[in-house]
Amino acid sequence: MAKAPVLTRQADDFPRWYQDLITKAELADNGPVRGTMVIRPYGYGLWERTQREMDDRIKATGAQNAYFPLFIPQSYLAREAEHVEGFAPELAVVTHGGGRELPEPVVVRPTSETIVNDYFAKWVQSYRDLPLLINQWANVVRWELRPRMFLRTTEFLWQEGHTAHATYEEARDFAARIQREVYADFMTGVLAIDVLPGRKTAAERFAGALNTLTLEAMMRDGKALQMGTSHELGQNFARAFGTRYLTADGARSHVWQTSWGSTTRMVGGMIMVHGDDDGLRVPPRLAPVQAVVLAVKDDEDVLARVREAGDRLAAAGVRVRVDDRVDVPFGRRAVDWELKGVPVRVEIGPRDLAAGTATLVRRIPGRREPVALDALLDEHAGLLPKILEEDQERLLRESRRMRVERTTDVRTVAEAAEAAAAGGWARIPWADLGPEGEARLAEQAVSVRCLVTADGAVPEADDEPGTLAVVARAY
Amino acid sequence: MAKAPVLTRQADDFPRWYQDLITKAELADNGPVRGTMVIRPYGYGLWERTQREMDDRIKATGAQNAYFPLFIPQSYLAREAEHVEGFAPELAVVTHGGGRELPEPVVVRPTSETIVNDYFAKWVQSYRDLPLLINQWANVVRWELRPRMFLRTTEFLWQEGHTAHATYEEARDFAARIQREVYADFMTGVLAIDVLPGRKTAAERFAGALNTLTLEAMMRDGKALQMGTSHELGQNFARAFGTRYLTADGARSHVWQTSWGSTTRMVGGMIMVHGDDDGLRVPPRLAPVQAVVLAVKDDEDVLARVREAGDRLAAAGVRVRVDDRVDVPFGRRAVDWELKGVPVRVEIGPRDLAAGTATLVRRIPGRREPVALDALLDEHAGLLPKILEEDQERLLRESRRMRVERTTDVRTVAEAAEAAAAGGWARIPWADLGPEGEARLAEQAVSVRCLVTADGAVPEADDEPGTLAVVARAY
Repeated sequence: MAKAPVLTRQADDFPRWYQDLITKAELADNGPVRGTMVIRPYGYGLWERTQREMDDRIKATGAQNAYFPLFIPQSYLAREAEHVEGFAPELAVVTHGGGRELPEPVVVRPTSETIVNDYFAKWVQSYRDLPLLINQWANVVRWELRPRMFLRTTEFLWQEGHTAHATYEEARDFAARIQREVYADFMTGVLAIDVLPGRKTAAERFAGALNTLTLEAMMRDGKALQMGTSHELGQNFARAFGTRYLTADGARSHVWQTSWGSTTRMVGGMIMVHGDDDGLRVPPRLAPVQAVVLAVKDDEDVLARVREAGDRLAAAGVRVRVDDRVDVPFGRRAVDWELKGVPVRVEIGPRDLAAGTATLVRRIPGRREPVALDALLDEHAGLLPKILEEDQERLLRESRRMRVERTTDVRTVAEAAEAAAAGGWARIPWADLGPEGEARLAEQAVSVRCLVTADGAVPEADDEPGTLAVVARAY
Repeated sequence: MAKAPVLTRQADDFPRWYQDLITKAELADNGPVRGTMVIRPYGYGLWERTQREMDDRIKATGAQNAYFPLFIPQSYLAREAEHVEGFAPELAVVTHGGGRELPEPVVVRPTSETIVNDYFAKWVQSYRDLPLLINQWANVVRWELRPRMFLRTTEFLWQEGHTAHATYEEARDFAARIQREVYADFMTGVLAIDVLPGRKTAAERFAGALNTLTLEAMMRDGKALQMGTSHELGQNFARAFGTRYLTADGARSHVWQTSWGSTTRMVGGMIMVHGDDDGLRVPPRLAPVQAVVLAVKDDEDVLARVREAGDRLAAAGVRVRVDDRVDVPFGRRAVDWELKGVPVRVEIGPRDLAAGTATLVRRIPGRREPVALDALLDEHAGLLPKILEEDQERLLRESRRMRVERTTDVRTVAEAAEAAAAGGWARIPWADLGPEGEARLAEQAVSVRCLVTADGAVPEADDEPGTLAVVARAY
């Protein structure tokens, strides 16, 4: 069936395709205040599933959720020198409250390290209070000059973790554990994105951190997207806020800290890794709707069968929606579900009923095939869950293949810039590039996304022998 | 076992007891900006459970979650006259963003009716788009002059529902459904609070609503707390924002709307209804920790048995925590769990091991008794789940008895004021009180909490014959 194109083609204008898709799949709209975003129910459903999956992984590390205030006294940010320098240009400032000018302006949190430390300093007394492992789900605000939906919005939703430990080693290991067991595990296992875990260079570190771990993903246009970061903060904030503890042998020591964050940007990444010219393709493990059962025509028997199929699939543990809106043309509904990237459609019409079949449309490989309805609905057969798992794996394989095929090994700054300009990533020995080469790449809007070891692990230091820099254009 | 009092007694100073408890049970701390609050993990756990239970009920009505921006252009609020008058004195205003003065100041949302309507006006085209049922979980800001933790904070967490319907009747019924199937069901069934559903008088209505439905609860000091409200907005916001739809016969009509909200204040209500001089008593269905298994002493066999008991109870579906912190004195840990109001403690010491018993401490009725450990841990016996259900019902009965016993029927304003001053509620025919009597009561800090019918139902209009006003002092 030939379809009229509903989206700008990726090859013609990738950013416009992205924008088109977000609007037409009803994921989000621009907000009235520049850089803000209204997340519509289908887009928010993706975020709710993200939260649930991430939250389980975060809690499995022993961290507990809490909530710190939106408003931070302006003076707090100034206490950690690099931190204020990094965030000052992006702050939203509240000067009036309750009809009066405030004695001290307050900032809307761009992140919560400062206010968290104010409380950690009260809560942590002795080594018995450590480790202190806190996470919060919240909105934060960073004024954006060039906003882009999900990727870079003035207000965004995120989780931010904040922990305090007795030793440097414990903090370092915890930051790495978050990178691996929470972020990489979720992004690979649920988002089906082949993220590259690495270490940021000094130039790319979080404001106030000793070390920033990152996960970088390749979008379909070859650009990189930073999907999440986990920071070793050392004792910088502890010193600024006096967060100290009594050790087992009675000494007083500053705690060692980490912070780590991931945002609604992950939804944008998922769109740009898996989406195609027909719309979104949502990984089944993430999908709020894994399968939709469509009534092709307004027919009593068809509607009854469609509803029964919905019930049976739901009973088999599939997140299913029944589309019995027969007053809307079938073609329009089919295109809409295609756009929204629901992994599987089960289409049932009068002719199917007679034959005992349905048309199964798999969005991810883009296949249509007739299936025996009984086989599909038999909850013991588990045909649909099996298909969903297959297509989940397929997306991850595609993502991996894309990254591998479009990454080149180079030796010079010129070659690295060329590879990035051609829509790919380049890998170059950090010893050959160094901070100077990094600065030259920056002039061409190319950045070092992360440092990795030759065998793809995360180096423990920038100058570890054999360290490679992965460079690319980035969102 | 005699205990040193850890809290101010309720009878001595109820507000101070409340404040003491929140601090000592580690529920929350005051934030650095006046009126803000840091919700600590144990307090946030209560909110997370609240969210989960409420969210299930909200989704069961067909509503979907979405997210609207924190920042609203100041001009939006002015579009609905009563609305801006109601909220203007409480607004927090952002005047600077990204290092510059903003061309138009933006307000931090005090509620989202205005911004929601801006989008409803875009999304709703025809009757096919109705009803539109949206909910969001978010933070809102209303500058508070007399803040009190959980009850009245400058920033608070809440859910706000916003719906659009084709007819007045549908909107009215939906607002009532939320009051009944979401709020009353959750508050009675999970919070174990005997809430009184009613209707607000004109003086107490939401700014911009035709009708406000409410749920009022009696605290242990006899004051009332508004636990949630559901509003019929009529066509007020639809007219202000041009939210219209094409009817089936081709006419253009403004939609009929509802909005409804409930907040972190519910946690405060739960504390003030169930807490006693020893601390909090958390209803088992709400409790993030339903049972804690304590090792009385540092003994290898005891620790093994305690951990085994924890595993067995978790397998039986109990939300359990193991307290094996034997380096902290047992008495201190016991007092701490008592303060935190965990419904059941299972205490195991060396002597218990020999006898095959444990000490079961039920926080709600305040009972200690030895139990055969085998009986407690047998997952088929279900002893603990049964006890938890019993104590859940017990709390609700206590709440009901308190409200019934401390509500008096009166006929005059003077009697009503007297009853409220004595720490109770009064019921007075609305025909006898009227807006004038309401104004006189207000001078004595007594308000009409809600209107109800003689048989305790929600009246359809203020002037329905036989309507009673329930009056009280309130938080």
